[in-house]
Amino acid sequence: MQAVRFHGKNDIRLEEIPIPVCGRGQVKVRPAFVGICGTDLHEYLEGAYLIPTAPHPHTGEQAPVVIGHEFGGTVSEVGEGISGLQVGQRVVIQPILFDETCAACQKGLINCCRKGGFIGLSGWGGGLSEYIVVPSYSVFKIPDSISLEVAALIEPLAVAWHAVTLSRFQPNDSALILGGGPIGLAVLQVLKARGARKVILSEIATKRKQYAADFGADLILDPTKDDVGARCLELFGGEGVQVVFDAVGRQSSIDTALVACRPRGVICNIAIWSEEAVIQPNYFCLNERTYVGSATYSAGDFQQVIDTIALGLLKPDPMITLVIGLEEVEERGFKTLINDKDSHVKIIVKV
Amino acid sequence: MQAVRFHGKNDIRLEEIPIPVCGRGQVKVRPAFVGICGTDLHEYLEGAYLIPTAPHPHTGEQAPVVIGHEFGGTVSEVGEGISGLQVGQRVVIQPILFDETCAACQKGLINCCRKGGFIGLSGWGGGLSEYIVVPSYSVFKIPDSISLEVAALIEPLAVAWHAVTLSRFQPNDSALILGGGPIGLAVLQVLKARGARKVILSEIATKRKQYAADFGADLILDPTKDDVGARCLELFGGEGVQVVFDAVGRQSSIDTALVACRPRGVICNIAIWSEEAVIQPNYFCLNERTYVGSATYSAGDFQQVIDTIALGLLKPDPMITLVIGLEEVEERGFKTLINDKDSHVKIIVKV
Repeated sequence: MQAVRFHGKNDIRLEEIPIPVCGRGQVKVRPAFVGICGTDLHEYLEGAYLIPTAPHPHTGEQAPVVIGHEFGGTVSEVGEGISGLQVGQRVVIQPILFDETCAACQKGLINCCRKGGFIGLSGWGGGLSEYIVVPSYSVFKIPDSISLEVAALIEPLAVAWHAVTLSRFQPNDSALILGGGPIGLAVLQVLKARGARKVILSEIATKRKQYAADFGADLILDPTKDDVGARCLELFGGEGVQVVFDAVGRQSSIDTALVACRPRGVICNIAIWSEEAVIQPNYFCLNERTYVGSATYSAGDFQQVIDTIALGLLKPDPMITLVIGLEEVEERGFKTLINDKDSHVKIIVKV
Repeated sequence: MQAVRFHGKNDIRLEEIPIPVCGRGQVKVRPAFVGICGTDLHEYLEGAYLIPTAPHPHTGEQAPVVIGHEFGGTVSEVGEGISGLQVGQRVVIQPILFDETCAACQKGLINCCRKGGFIGLSGWGGGLSEYIVVPSYSVFKIPDSISLEVAALIEPLAVAWHAVTLSRFQPNDSALILGGGPIGLAVLQVLKARGARKVILSEIATKRKQYAADFGADLILDPTKDDVGARCLELFGGEGVQVVFDAVGRQSSIDTALVACRPRGVICNIAIWSEEAVIQPNYFCLNERTYVGSATYSAGDFQQVIDTIALGLLKPDPMITLVIGLEEVEERGFKTLINDKDSHVKIIVKV
């Protein structure tokens, strides 16, 4: 079968590999559409970072590995010992691998697993292939009302859903999102679906500002022109917003968050930082601000996103800004996102 | 009447000042015992820091001001418009001033008040005087079972109670306390009273280690000899503790906290930092750790501490390591704590 594998930095290849065998407790899936994630680009540009170059503690595999972890598809084979799944069932894959010896995994905190296994990064195959075999716990059914294109958006929306939960956001709270990239826009949609009063989004790029407007941001600020923290105070009676999501990850974003955040407010980091941050902890005591890091998702998030899309409260289709073929992943996928990232939210690959 | 006033750095004076007049909605109290706080020492050694040198936005006062904010006493006069209080009633004073125009105060988050008024620091008199007039909302009755000496401990215990609440500690959780000074020891007692499974305390000073043992620490580690973070992991099956309280406030303490803290654990800062801290936010995402700053206390904390002492679940008497007279505040109080701080938990002043 055809699959896109990561061999090393700047080296991904569409190649012919064997079709994986479906074992007991496993499910073979035919991926339909696969989203390209910032993490994939990061591996391509600067990796191997998360992709193992020595046997991974969970999978035992190492590069080359098949990539792609944002995808849905149809079941093509059901392994022994599995009930409730049929060939042809439309599904989405939750890519985090579960380690039964891990105390965090046992509590449902699969994203805090000490082994950190991830389909599409650590082995177990990936979405960018004609077939993949996954553990049955990774498979979530999707209803007919959710297209397989939209199924590829469930993973990034689960990241956003999880961050919003961790932030202790409550309906009718106001929020500030720093950064209007794919995750910032996913957080915007989730906040709106979960009853946010006002959502302010801070972004520099013109096209991303337009996307933010399309997804319902109540106010879009430009940090090169606006004093974002001061504007948040001004807009909410000197108090600021209840929650701030940092999808930028720079010193300036944490500094802005601290100004914008109201007493007992929460700053939720969803960015991957390439630098360290300097904080004055006294400033966290002042107004008792909370800082929390959110990483992917844990038990429950995927199903909640699926249910919310099915209810029509999340309508993420416009996040898909380009659909490409499997043979176009590097040139029209990765390179477009690297050279013109502000023009796109999600490029998805039709397998 | 006699009162101890702060005039400036290294300058506190016992002097004669007029007895304050008790107005409408106010209560005149005769302080009995007053604790000396680290904040008082900080003002003395490096101030004025919190003590205003220009008219304070809440009180309109500025140095010289009467100091002392950890105290109880007896009511000596009840102003007009107050019911439920009689002369002779034994009380403790919650020193935070309430600003009715402040949105945080209106929600009970009095410690997040934008004006930041504090009896014994910002004006309105202080405990180290023969009489003080306070707003009636500052006055909490204490039952006969609580001595007036112990009443002076309620304020620091409320600081600890509040931090434990903010940390989202739950009964049967395990905790690490970094630093065995008065606040670290107060947190230790509160954790024990609230059903902690195991409390580990990290401290260097021999005498403080002994106090920690007396107050029931399950394990006392010495950061100059033990790898505190690694020991916490080892003791709790590789997972670490649920909550860490930082009562030290150094780069090494935040670094230790991040190692010791289990998935979804909380690091609660109760230290005042003199330096900035460098953090790698990705490390907060890993295991989804939360960092929260706790500052004094808000609505409810004082009463909960009073009730818990009355129930016998908190027995803080041994925190009092020396009782001195009003004329001894500087020489036997402040200077002892400055020169020999590790030997004492609380020095209280008999007014």
